[in-house]
Amino acid sequence: MDLLIKNGMILTMNAGLEVIEKGAVRVRDGIIISVGKDDMEPSQEVPTREIDAHGGIIMPGLINSHTHAAMTLFRGLADDLPLMEWLNDHIFPAEAKITADMVYRGTLLACAEMLLSGTTCFCDMYLFEEEVAKAASKAGMRAVVGEVLYDFPSPCYGPLDKGFEYVKTMMEKWKAHPLITVAVEPHATYTCAPELLTRAADMARTRQVPLVIHVAETRNEVKLIKEKYGKTPVNFLADLGILGPNVVACHSVHLTPEERAVYRKFDVKVAHCPESNMKLASGVAPVPEFLSEGICVALGTDGCASNNDLDLFQEMDSAAKLHKVFSMNPEAVDAASAVKMATINGARALGLDESVGSLEPGKKADIIVVDTRSPHMVPMYNPYSQLVYAAKGSDVMLSIVDGKVLMENQALTTLDVDQVMDDVLAMAKKIAAGDGG
Amino acid sequence: MDLLIKNGMILTMNAGLEVIEKGAVRVRDGIIISVGKDDMEPSQEVPTREIDAHGGIIMPGLINSHTHAAMTLFRGLADDLPLMEWLNDHIFPAEAKITADMVYRGTLLACAEMLLSGTTCFCDMYLFEEEVAKAASKAGMRAVVGEVLYDFPSPCYGPLDKGFEYVKTMMEKWKAHPLITVAVEPHATYTCAPELLTRAADMARTRQVPLVIHVAETRNEVKLIKEKYGKTPVNFLADLGILGPNVVACHSVHLTPEERAVYRKFDVKVAHCPESNMKLASGVAPVPEFLSEGICVALGTDGCASNNDLDLFQEMDSAAKLHKVFSMNPEAVDAASAVKMATINGARALGLDESVGSLEPGKKADIIVVDTRSPHMVPMYNPYSQLVYAAKGSDVMLSIVDGKVLMENQALTTLDVDQVMDDVLAMAKKIAAGDGG
Ligand SMILES: [Zn+2]
Ligand SMILES: [Zn+2]
Repeated sequence: MDLLIKNGMILTMNAGLEVIEKGAVRVRDGIIISVGKDDMEPSQEVPTREIDAHGGIIMPGLINSHTHAAMTLFRGLADDLPLMEWLNDHIFPAEAKITADMVYRGTLLACAEMLLSGTTCFCDMYLFEEEVAKAASKAGMRAVVGEVLYDFPSPCYGPLDKGFEYVKTMMEKWKAHPLITVAVEPHATYTCAPELLTRAADMARTRQVPLVIHVAETRNEVKLIKEKYGKTPVNFLADLGILGPNVVACHSVHLTPEERAVYRKFDVKVAHCPESNMKLASGVAPVPEFLSEGICVALGTDGCASNNDLDLFQEMDSAAKLHKVFSMNPEAVDAASAVKMATINGARALGLDESVGSLEPGKKADIIVVDTRSPHMVPMYNPYSQLVYAAKGSDVMLSIVDGKVLMENQALTTLDVDQVMDDVLAMAKKIAAGDGG
Repeated sequence: MDLLIKNGMILTMNAGLEVIEKGAVRVRDGIIISVGKDDMEPSQEVPTREIDAHGGIIMPGLINSHTHAAMTLFRGLADDLPLMEWLNDHIFPAEAKITADMVYRGTLLACAEMLLSGTTCFCDMYLFEEEVAKAASKAGMRAVVGEVLYDFPSPCYGPLDKGFEYVKTMMEKWKAHPLITVAVEPHATYTCAPELLTRAADMARTRQVPLVIHVAETRNEVKLIKEKYGKTPVNFLADLGILGPNVVACHSVHLTPEERAVYRKFDVKVAHCPESNMKLASGVAPVPEFLSEGICVALGTDGCASNNDLDLFQEMDSAAKLHKVFSMNPEAVDAASAVKMATINGARALGLDESVGSLEPGKKADIIVVDTRSPHMVPMYNPYSQLVYAAKGSDVMLSIVDGKVLMENQALTTLDVDQVMDDVLAMAKKIAAGDGG
């Protein structure tokens, strides 16, 4: 046996949401081989490494179902502005000057932040996505990565045809990698022509990978698409024949009941980003309705220009609270639902639920341990409540991906965090001066 | 000189919101004697202690304008429930069995949590408030404390007359204390008869202390008071002659424009608790309107049964984001406004703005330093944005009250944090079993 994590309360996040007090998880060759009581099945084998969870919570690593990791570069560059001024005067000019190296360094910083706050897997959409794959692989994180595709020339690949080539090359390069999945990621209905969208959907379907796209994020987007095509973004995508169980529809804020039924019919997955939707004043997604209608809702932070962090603990808290006040129902999005959104639902959305998202024998060992021995975590009557309403990313004492310890006691094992921060700080100086990175 | 804190970016939170890069704060006998550039006014005096802020943010300690500190005992005891079930089946039965010792231990835990997350002053309303004063004093925190007064017999003082005596005794006992202010705190319009309210207001006015009261927290409360008195809670209080600049109106969620004008006229202060209002589905207070109309809005966490933490960094984040999405305006409650709410506005609301809430010569040295050297705090383009949208309570590396270091590098100097946690954990076992503490 390689690894034994013992003396913790296990939230399995399996189908029955089983909780095991004083439990232990055993891992061999990166795979979970048992999940049970500390005193059960005393193994004959001596583990290579034994980790004491000290009474903390042992649970699946969190899954960030939608982000633009390298946008850590622009964290707080421009806030509290009208959407168009924010985009046109700040984000777009900064992104126009972005380079492969900036994306690599920005993503390393994002990986550091994510591992330190218990996220072990993320789904990314950005420019120079090859660099994101490299950075995730360097950090040891699981990632679904996809070069953003749109109608206009890209600073990364140039014209669109090269974009599809870029994605294909990435797929070939990373296909045997244990941690990296290359997805197809057209930006949105308002930035991608129907031809782009159908070609992307065909590619995703053929390759059996996720199709990740922003859908119905703002009222303005819905208005625009209605004007252009005479129908809403969801119906436009449905009529193009694009929707299916591999589609990750990021945001999905402005949907009618009929459009939710379309999601249900095609088993579309939602990547819900409550904090970004709040900060940009995009609106509130109908998450209680999605959940009661059986639509799979995962949780994402979106990029650091609109959040401004990658902490899924805070995102769970915001999701649970926002929907309560917005629906005026204190029972909406309960704590266990929020934890499901950040774990098993994330895995399902990304097509990874056979391998991660819960602690069950046979699954990959993507595991975190949350410390419960600090004033804001005392007392603990209910572990889900505690994780959602009280825990902070900084309470995570252990992050394991594929059986490897990547973070322990807030120290990273794969990244030189000082170097990573210094690299980005140097780039930020140039960004602030308007000179790119 | 007693203390020099140097090498940080100072957010003074003074009237001009002056920011000093590479600044230093000098403290003597608990009083700030200078705030300026590191290299200015090289003092002849050698400080007893010199603290290097390591490039972090030096700012006023945060002020929690509304909490029930001892409710840490009930953190996560019952969540995601309808309000009446939550109160009647869980919170009230637990509170009926509360004792002085439980309040003391629960408040010590709250003080630990607050100091660790940069809160240096809090305004409390609860039972056995003498114990809260003792606990705050033991922790070294600044506090405005007030025994909750209502029509029915109290587990603490018994009948109401004894309640006023209890407050009076507390006032006499603590009047010379440098950190403790005893306020008058009738619970709410629906739990306090007009006679109680006017007597309390007279007492607060005579003693020149705050009158703290819950106002218009829920739609149901407004409905109830309208049925009972034929007017809204705000108009009921105004007509009783109770409103004035010393009134801290906690929550103030359901107010009409006319009632906001009443607040403006009487200079009533608002203690805004966005996370509690979200989690209990109480509603969204008209904070952008309060601010644009010149009404002083402070920030509070409310108690841990409805939040479930005492972290004002997260509360600032939630306030800034909630009002953006609720008003569909990304400019609503900008980051600097959120920081003001948690600092100088808090001081103003509690009648303490002559002594705390900003870093200015002559004010008491209630100071915190926020570490900016971690992945989620890099890069930093704007300090207010960073504090509100990226910083966590755990980033606070120094909490000083009245010139005394109470927390340094996440270790407390006045409290034995293990003992404090163990005491509450023992009580929580009994609470969970329905046996009181
Ligand atoms: Zn996005
Ligand atoms: Zn309250």
